[in-house]
Amino acid sequence: MTIYDWFDGPYPARVRIAIAEKNLQSQVRFESINLWTGEHKTPAFLAKNYSGTLPVLELDDGSLIAECTAITEYLDHLEGPPTLTGRTSFEKGTIHMMSRRAELELLDAISVYFHHATPGLGPEVELYQNAEWGVRQRDRAMRAMGYFDALLKTQPYIAGTEFSMADITVIGAFIFAAIVQLEVPAHYTALHAWHGRMQERPSVQAWNRMVEETRAAA
Amino acid sequence: MTIYDWFDGPYPARVRIAIAEKNLQSQVRFESINLWTGEHKTPAFLAKNYSGTLPVLELDDGSLIAECTAITEYLDHLEGPPTLTGRTSFEKGTIHMMSRRAELELLDAISVYFHHATPGLGPEVELYQNAEWGVRQRDRAMRAMGYFDALLKTQPYIAGTEFSMADITVIGAFIFAAIVQLEVPAHYTALHAWHGRMQERPSVQAWNRMVEETRAAA
Repeated sequence: MTIYDWFDGPYPARVRIAIAEKNLQSQVRFESINLWTGEHKTPAFLAKNYSGTLPVLELDDGSLIAECTAITEYLDHLEGPPTLTGRTSFEKGTIHMMSRRAELELLDAISVYFHHATPGLGPEVELYQNAEWGVRQRDRAMRAMGYFDALLKTQPYIAGTEFSMADITVIGAFIFAAIVQLEVPAHYTALHAWHGRMQERPSVQAWNRMVEETRAAA
Repeated sequence: MTIYDWFDGPYPARVRIAIAEKNLQSQVRFESINLWTGEHKTPAFLAKNYSGTLPVLELDDGSLIAECTAITEYLDHLEGPPTLTGRTSFEKGTIHMMSRRAELELLDAISVYFHHATPGLGPEVELYQNAEWGVRQRDRAMRAMGYFDALLKTQPYIAGTEFSMADITVIGAFIFAAIVQLEVPAHYTALHAWHGRMQERPSVQAWNRMVEETRAAA
């Protein structure tokens, strides 16, 4: 399998962490699509993913799967029972709800802020910006941090009692928040404690190390 | 189970059609949340769904599942093999990709157009509008119709060779397009032919009939 992505992108991080959680590293090769030159918006790449977003998974037969949730569903069911997307009907429903909520209210909101109310990927790539909309989405993300903090006062993981795809989505949001220098308020102690526990996972440590090494080598 | 929704809402339609496809009608009761008075934005409802959107599924033990994809995952795995969200890893990945793409590019884009660049649910409910953003999203939806038309020239259903959740998402987009009077261009013949076939499904016919009868009774 080939993953088209960019090494430190927050959405690509979601799939890289899922791959590590599933121990599939040896089955995947990565091909860089340079976000900063807008390579993801070229006709060649749009033919792989109509939406022009990263990451995209290409199977050995040429089939393409885009969208983090979809790629995670694919990887999670490759062999053995699923570990990230739920086993029972209730787990599946809850994990999909919480992962989607984390996208809608937090990760995607931060992404819109980055692309619309900051220089984003630069004027060559950000051909249209709506700063007012971007600022609204930043405020939405800040509110959502309060929601997730309150949630994590009552349960250890984003979707309940077990680590799941929904935690990975919020990890992606923290990665994006750091890039755009949105600080998670210190008084969200449950959210910070959860994030500290996430940093102890080998999948997240491997991602942090890879990013550090790649940046140092650049 | 209780579904909180509004009878002719395009997102509620996705779950009502899924329920009919799974023959679960007898297990579900519906409770109306009036979109036109903003009942979905009241504190009482926001306690059920932080995002303030319909539909929401409440299980008999009080557990809540929001987001159409999540509710569909839940319903599809209640008993027997899944019929809407895929059986194999590849099917799951492809159906989730196409359903998400249909949201991002088509259904959600039409929804943003409705809420931001038309009167939407009225001034009491639409407390913030960004008309420029709404119009951009309308244009995005119109482009996506071309994408789905081209896709349906090569395969019978949105996610490939079988009916799935992804078809239901595009059906929801057609329902919303009709509400906001966005016409699907006549030259998208494959998209229109697909939509015609969808209208023959008992699940869709039942929804159409229910909406007609409810509107007539009002």
